[in-house]
Amino acid sequence: MKKLINNVDSVVTDALTGLAAAHPALRVDVENKIVFRAAGPRPGKVGLVSGGGSGHEPLHGGFVGYGMLDAACPGEVFTSPVPDQMIEATKGVDGGAGVLHIVKNYTGDVLNFEMAAELCGDEGVEVVSVLVNDDVAVRDSLYTAGRRGTGATLFVEKIAGALAETGAPLGEVARVAREVNERSRSFGVALSACTVPAAGKPTFELGESEIELGIGIHGEPGRTRAAHGPARELVRVAMDAIHEDLPLSGEVLVLVNGMGGTPLLELYIAFAEVAAYLREKGASPARVLVGNYVTSLDMQGFSVTTCALTEELTRLWDAPVETPALRWGR
Amino acid sequence: MKKLINNVDSVVTDALTGLAAAHPALRVDVENKIVFRAAGPRPGKVGLVSGGGSGHEPLHGGFVGYGMLDAACPGEVFTSPVPDQMIEATKGVDGGAGVLHIVKNYTGDVLNFEMAAELCGDEGVEVVSVLVNDDVAVRDSLYTAGRRGTGATLFVEKIAGALAETGAPLGEVARVAREVNERSRSFGVALSACTVPAAGKPTFELGESEIELGIGIHGEPGRTRAAHGPARELVRVAMDAIHEDLPLSGEVLVLVNGMGGTPLLELYIAFAEVAAYLREKGASPARVLVGNYVTSLDMQGFSVTTCALTEELTRLWDAPVETPALRWGR
Repeated sequence: MKKLINNVDSVVTDALTGLAAAHPALRVDVENKIVFRAAGPRPGKVGLVSGGGSGHEPLHGGFVGYGMLDAACPGEVFTSPVPDQMIEATKGVDGGAGVLHIVKNYTGDVLNFEMAAELCGDEGVEVVSVLVNDDVAVRDSLYTAGRRGTGATLFVEKIAGALAETGAPLGEVARVAREVNERSRSFGVALSACTVPAAGKPTFELGESEIELGIGIHGEPGRTRAAHGPARELVRVAMDAIHEDLPLSGEVLVLVNGMGGTPLLELYIAFAEVAAYLREKGASPARVLVGNYVTSLDMQGFSVTTCALTEELTRLWDAPVETPALRWGR
Repeated sequence: MKKLINNVDSVVTDALTGLAAAHPALRVDVENKIVFRAAGPRPGKVGLVSGGGSGHEPLHGGFVGYGMLDAACPGEVFTSPVPDQMIEATKGVDGGAGVLHIVKNYTGDVLNFEMAAELCGDEGVEVVSVLVNDDVAVRDSLYTAGRRGTGATLFVEKIAGALAETGAPLGEVARVAREVNERSRSFGVALSACTVPAAGKPTFELGESEIELGIGIHGEPGRTRAAHGPARELVRVAMDAIHEDLPLSGEVLVLVNGMGGTPLLELYIAFAEVAAYLREKGASPARVLVGNYVTSLDMQGFSVTTCALTEELTRLWDAPVETPALRWGR
């Protein structure tokens, strides 16, 4: 597996150097691995901080900017960031109205964000944490007690970010973030494994015509191995799992997400099947994203994330956003 | 190689079905394979039509919308669209001010667009064609007489599209399109081959630690095979080739483009090296895109495209755009 890198030890800092050079609206602390908005905290605005292992780009650094995150803390590849990063990020985005931590449910992330929140609290920064755990595939997993957090993280960051931009108080921003998570469900399918640069070989082995149903975003096992089949069938497995957990109806926000190595052409084929499935259930894909948003390095495959919209959530989804990876309407 | 498809024969139509379902601002004629803006032609506005083989998504269908293309004609995977598609697209976008054809320099595309332009001319639609041939890697190639058209196509479509939106006449829109092409250069590097669904096996073979310098977007051969090396060295090969052909200076529009299978994390590592190279030459990356824009299915690798900006080109690049794959500032 050939990687477009300089050195396995400098993957994250080299990528952050590129992110900084590409986006003048960001201020990237390469040494301490924190991505801030260049404009700094706005007095009276709730700050939003997220973070997690690298290898899922554009999540989270690509979602820093107007209408979304105020800072992101990238860890090493597939490794939680450390509390020091989160503490510095939290203090750095505090505009006096408190800070929301958006935490994907992985044991390392949860523990480190908890520690950071406590320490910031001791220093007078009010922090509320929201856990994202949308993945219906498995109950517990290799790195998780309870459900894993995946695609809904993007929804939470976008929608809570839009509300924070209006000057809403911390309690309100946390409420809407939790509501998005509660109304969201995900399921992923891997057609291939991914390769962590430092390991140099695939994280798991899949047979020539074998796939993994319910894959995690670090390549951790899902529900079961199965024979590869048409997109229509794979999408149906994913959608059935989501629908069984939270019946689909009404207007739905949909993400058909590439794992990093699957062509956009194929993701649109999957979305056609998702749209057909929703119509079959009397639901409609009212807002749609198709592309690579919450990735697993070079893994081939896809995930579907749905969020049952309300009027408020739709309005906040549609609100202007200006980040490297999500940008519209300002 | 596992593909997320239903059937090798329905790849393009299934993907267009998904595109239609995802983007209500588009009107997709799935049967005849044409992607239009839903709003239809605006009287007095020059229409922009492009097209080419599928497998390069989001190019071209993902660039249809306000401020960019009026229609795109996707062929089968890596196969030129046919004149009938181009004729229907051209007539469908004509608002009385004529139509610009943006044609990547591949023999099939050139011939078919020429035939379509002639036939439309006979029926009273004024058509001007602009050829994109920015790839400095090779002089002639498997499917090309002269240089191949690659990443600059996006620049031409965006900048000419912005000018057309102001109501500029066809001659002016064609002039700016040609100027963008003349000021743009590209070079691509493949770390892996790609697999066309109907073929089911890679289009070429690369050794375990071998790469292809100057790769074409259909996997056609470039300048030479070489040993894989650090991103810094691969970027230097690409930038040297560009700089030798058109010395880099001043403000540059830069695309660091993924071929479809390379993680965004790695593309940012490549961009860091591009930015360093530009600074070394006294140039600056004034406008930047990093991501999968002109792809080759699941190929791993990247290309760099540069365009020497002028005040006019910068203004047109910054102008609002609202397409599935490029969207800002409206």
